[in-house]
Amino acid sequence: MQTKHNVGILGATGMVGQRFIQLLETHPWFQVTWLAASDRSSGKPYGEAVRWKLDTPIPAAIAALPVSAATPENAPRIVFAALDTDIARDMEPKFASAGCAVISNSSAFRMQDNVPLVIPEVNADHLALISQQNWNTSVKKRGYIVTNPNCSAIGLVLALKPLAVRFGLRSVFVSTMQAVSGAGYPGVPSLDILGNVVPFIRNEEEKLEAETRRLLGKLEKDRVAPLDVRVSAHCNRVAVEDGHTESVSVELDSKPTREEILSAWREFQPLREANLPTAPLQPIEYDAAEDRPQPRLDRMRGRGMAVTVGRLRPCTLLDWKFTVLSHNTIRGAAGAALLNAELLASQEKLLPPGASS
Amino acid sequence: MQTKHNVGILGATGMVGQRFIQLLETHPWFQVTWLAASDRSSGKPYGEAVRWKLDTPIPAAIAALPVSAATPENAPRIVFAALDTDIARDMEPKFASAGCAVISNSSAFRMQDNVPLVIPEVNADHLALISQQNWNTSVKKRGYIVTNPNCSAIGLVLALKPLAVRFGLRSVFVSTMQAVSGAGYPGVPSLDILGNVVPFIRNEEEKLEAETRRLLGKLEKDRVAPLDVRVSAHCNRVAVEDGHTESVSVELDSKPTREEILSAWREFQPLREANLPTAPLQPIEYDAAEDRPQPRLDRMRGRGMAVTVGRLRPCTLLDWKFTVLSHNTIRGAAGAALLNAELLASQEKLLPPGASS
Amino acid sequence: MQTKHNVGILGATGMVGQRFIQLLETHPWFQVTWLAASDRSSGKPYGEAVRWKLDTPIPAAIAALPVSAATPENAPRIVFAALDTDIARDMEPKFASAGCAVISNSSAFRMQDNVPLVIPEVNADHLALISQQNWNTSVKKRGYIVTNPNCSAIGLVLALKPLAVRFGLRSVFVSTMQAVSGAGYPGVPSLDILGNVVPFIRNEEEKLEAETRRLLGKLEKDRVAPLDVRVSAHCNRVAVEDGHTESVSVELDSKPTREEILSAWREFQPLREANLPTAPLQPIEYDAAEDRPQPRLDRMRGRGMAVTVGRLRPCTLLDWKFTVLSHNTIRGAAGAALLNAELLASQEKLLPPGASS
Amino acid sequence: MQTKHNVGILGATGMVGQRFIQLLETHPWFQVTWLAASDRSSGKPYGEAVRWKLDTPIPAAIAALPVSAATPENAPRIVFAALDTDIARDMEPKFASAGCAVISNSSAFRMQDNVPLVIPEVNADHLALISQQNWNTSVKKRGYIVTNPNCSAIGLVLALKPLAVRFGLRSVFVSTMQAVSGAGYPGVPSLDILGNVVPFIRNEEEKLEAETRRLLGKLEKDRVAPLDVRVSAHCNRVAVEDGHTESVSVELDSKPTREEILSAWREFQPLREANLPTAPLQPIEYDAAEDRPQPRLDRMRGRGMAVTVGRLRPCTLLDWKFTVLSHNTIRGAAGAALLNAELLASQEKLLPPGASS
Repeated sequence: MQTKHNVGILGATGMVGQRFIQLLETHPWFQVTWLAASDRSSGKPYGEAVRWKLDTPIPAAIAALPVSAATPENAPRIVFAALDTDIARDMEPKFASAGCAVISNSSAFRMQDNVPLVIPEVNADHLALISQQNWNTSVKKRGYIVTNPNCSAIGLVLALKPLAVRFGLRSVFVSTMQAVSGAGYPGVPSLDILGNVVPFIRNEEEKLEAETRRLLGKLEKDRVAPLDVRVSAHCNRVAVEDGHTESVSVELDSKPTREEILSAWREFQPLREANLPTAPLQPIEYDAAEDRPQPRLDRMRGRGMAVTVGRLRPCTLLDWKFTVLSHNTIRGAAGAALLNAELLASQEKLLPPGASS
Repeated sequence: MQTKHNVGILGATGMVGQRFIQLLETHPWFQVTWLAASDRSSGKPYGEAVRWKLDTPIPAAIAALPVSAATPENAPRIVFAALDTDIARDMEPKFASAGCAVISNSSAFRMQDNVPLVIPEVNADHLALISQQNWNTSVKKRGYIVTNPNCSAIGLVLALKPLAVRFGLRSVFVSTMQAVSGAGYPGVPSLDILGNVVPFIRNEEEKLEAETRRLLGKLEKDRVAPLDVRVSAHCNRVAVEDGHTESVSVELDSKPTREEILSAWREFQPLREANLPTAPLQPIEYDAAEDRPQPRLDRMRGRGMAVTVGRLRPCTLLDWKFTVLSHNTIRGAAGAALLNAELLASQEKLLPPGASS
Repeated sequence: MQTKHNVGILGATGMVGQRFIQLLETHPWFQVTWLAASDRSSGKPYGEAVRWKLDTPIPAAIAALPVSAATPENAPRIVFAALDTDIARDMEPKFASAGCAVISNSSAFRMQDNVPLVIPEVNADHLALISQQNWNTSVKKRGYIVTNPNCSAIGLVLALKPLAVRFGLRSVFVSTMQAVSGAGYPGVPSLDILGNVVPFIRNEEEKLEAETRRLLGKLEKDRVAPLDVRVSAHCNRVAVEDGHTESVSVELDSKPTREEILSAWREFQPLREANLPTAPLQPIEYDAAEDRPQPRLDRMRGRGMAVTVGRLRPCTLLDWKFTVLSHNTIRGAAGAALLNAELLASQEKLLPPGASS
Repeated sequence: MQTKHNVGILGATGMVGQRFIQLLETHPWFQVTWLAASDRSSGKPYGEAVRWKLDTPIPAAIAALPVSAATPENAPRIVFAALDTDIARDMEPKFASAGCAVISNSSAFRMQDNVPLVIPEVNADHLALISQQNWNTSVKKRGYIVTNPNCSAIGLVLALKPLAVRFGLRSVFVSTMQAVSGAGYPGVPSLDILGNVVPFIRNEEEKLEAETRRLLGKLEKDRVAPLDVRVSAHCNRVAVEDGHTESVSVELDSKPTREEILSAWREFQPLREANLPTAPLQPIEYDAAEDRPQPRLDRMRGRGMAVTVGRLRPCTLLDWKFTVLSHNTIRGAAGAALLNAELLASQEKLLPPGASS
């Protein structure tokens, strides 16, 4: 890959938009040349428009970049989208029908039949659904939308996938303790979360249950048949900045030993050959310490892209229980979309028809 | 009840010991006349020996009280115990065999056949096991030990009891988010919990599972037959000062409607006639708001003795799911023991044989 | 006082509005009969309009009270105001010119010459400025506005007053660590304050410096001459729910001993004779422990109305240094206004001319 | 520098010891070959002995290294020390008299006349005091001790130094808000700091005041004459994991403009020529945003070695006020010692007489 792809970011001033910029700063394949945000930011240099909340500085070139209006006219052909659901529902099709590859982190189209919902290590084959999309009658301008799952689903599904493949998955119980950054900025008021737990995140349990079934589902001709697995989710917000922790119990078809489960996780390296820059060497790291994983200590494993699992032990109700942790704005959002883009690029499917690098 | 009972506190300087003192400050039936703690505190006025961590002042009379050695010689006949397990295993029998009623919050004897493990609203009849105890051959000096459950079990079991009675209880899934005060002082280091979750509390899952079955069990001649219910617990520590929050799913024998479950909780008032000073009018308060209960807002309901339940909704895996909250050092510890003592007093069983008020 | 005064609350759904309701629930002199909030709340029962954030329940009678439009037509003659500055600047004069006593917590008129800025223990005589107000030409409808200081000023000025009186006050250095509840709800985003300090609160340093000089100033004919004291403030926000902590150094005219300063605080009881229901017995409590005051442990002293001082020690730069703590939404806001109203009532100045109880 | 120096770490399992290991993992000049900790760790592989609390993994080679007894017999000639004061007072002289260069973070010898207390950018010339040390009569075994300041002093003194040089420094007022990691592990109990401020850190104010004067002092023949500046410190602990924030006011001899002060900070690059691997390019970064610096966002500037200053504004009491932030376990501890070692190495003074690389 000689020259880098120019890419744009929709929703560039939000928390996930900031992560996109951070992760793309030194990316070997992509360079950010276009940023869009809400109208009141339009025209300002990004450095003025954004309330930057990450602990690395805004890349100087990005800080000087003017924020564009969120319309496809001058956007590059590859666009990462970090939009609120309602806005995404309206805006992402506009970019797709203007011929853009929309690599979206929003929930608007995740459950639409012809839009792939993908975690590269889990269901890369679902990307074939792109060919079912039809946003514009002109083939030259046929863009597409690809989505990644909700931040609470990614860590869970990565941990479940090797179990589902080797042992068959029947039932999943999951209770989450989710970080505040998942709600964006300003997001969760401090009076709601300091010294507190909020046992409710709107629509989160529904998304976590449905997306898990779809991600583990089977690609059929023009749609995905969800996996027939019962998933019951409790979603809670806790006083953590970054990193979603999840208590999980699973029922499996065959009855593997502890060592067989550990092997399944250890040997799960489906992207090993793909050489994607953002893919972690070891997507699932098992930590044998009795009190791990913990968000403060483990969320940055694999530069924020690895999922940490710990505390595997028998469950009196289902078969096994364990704890899963993943970084919600890296692996669970911007990094997830970026990995989708890298997978598409490695398959030479990233650029829509008619586009040139 | 003309005069107040003199009572003592074993482990008076710890977090639960402090709660005993706070809750007993204006108690109509009991007055604290004796305090014991570790040897290095012995002889000092309580106000100097303690690192007081509550937000109400130490009662002046208590602050001046000298801390006694933890031996039964000069102790009153009624003793509240807030001791570490290892110390309790050694010390509580000494007090019982010296003729004391030991109202214990420790875990040392909770699972012993002839020691009652009691929540007054749940299994008051189990107190009859006292008669099976035999700490001293002299009837005149026959004390006893009564225990209350672990702080994570009390809220759960209170919420489960009316469901078990009306609908039959088959399976329980519970994932806890527990406050740091449950670990005592100094307890959890701040570096472990600021901005973090620790998915492990030693022995907690085992206690929560076993005590739930025993509390809901049936009193037989000289022991309790645990309820045949499958309980699977995940225990987590979160950055909350007081108040344990628990995500719960249950499977029931009969299949009640939502309204039937709400009625079961609303109508659960087994102590209504007993007029115990510490008993909450409504032991289980259901909050219909979509995002409750929350520890910061709900832990002090019923002066810290009520359990708040919320978010009742169907569970795709079992039958129903909901969230339970209770104050871990009031309802879950000192208040639990105090309520046990009040129940015994109301039944004129508190004072051991040979003792006078 | 036979019957209670009817009172209203402007801004009843905000954090300070909620505190007014909580503090007035069992008040012996006042009863809440009217609540107003923003237009979108108008007409709804208060219990539906509010996002209640206190850990005591909404009083049932208040929950059922419909929220009124924020106009004086049907308001009682005594109104507590908890409004944002911009809204207060417009709205409080409307109520005053309609004949209401406006007991305000907002900053809009605090520095206006003819509006008293009062802490009852500090400068009760400043209330005389009411007679300089002239909101309506008709004497029958002559209401007034009385204000209390910013939440960061009240604790400081209470601690300074006895020193200023006995020893003369030349210079004050103060660095605050302020709770998030001071910013209202939603207020401070959790991403800004979890594991963090924000060394900036808009306009806070200016208010703290200017209000301190005015509160300690001398009432002249028709205005207050501010005390000629140099005050330098640094204001910081920290991850505390309630309670402002302040590091203070002072330079004094005379050079008192440590014991003389402690006596000045101990003997400061200017309201002792007044018997105001909300006044703390001991407005300044000195705690001799080496590590006090602390917000979590000390903010509720005197039911949230006492100021705790600790760590008195020599200052190498000025004369003495110490730490001050006060509850920012009780003593620093709703309780401050309530105490102003009580003082006025005890002097039979609360009801404006032409009003009857 | 062809081959790397072998270095050891005393107190390797503590929080600062862990930072040493993290910072030395890929160091171009030093390699860790020896680790010592308390007796109960001795003999175990480091990975088992330590409770690792950083968010990067233990380097594999270090995890396997056995923990040595804390005696100089087999220690390398260069030793980083991260010991408690009492232990350091006894142990550091043993290593120095055995011929080791002891690069110490402890407070035991910081104020001893012949032991340099050094921040390389501030007072590199003070290192000459090494020649005054005399721990062993044999010149061949003449080691030395070099110290760095307390974590609360480093950020402050770096910000003050260019002001002292250009404008003359008369008085300093500083109020700190310090992170919990400064107290080590287990350190601050979570019950003391969640939702709280503790306005006391033992001996901290004394150290901060005295070390500031010594660091800014003048090297005389065989000792340092402290700078004649009045420093008054208030030290507070807040609920922050890493990063000390300090509110500072200063009085200066000459009366510089705002722009002159900003220039003094911007142009302060005393190590520019030295090419030390750990030195930040810009030791003092001024952030012009109204609400910076903040620990969560700014502590990692310059890989944790830069100090961030913000909010420069006039002080009504002294001349100017501002906020300083620095990472307390990197710039304030392990990174400080490491920079001292690099400076010594660059001057070919690191290895004591008789030692070879």
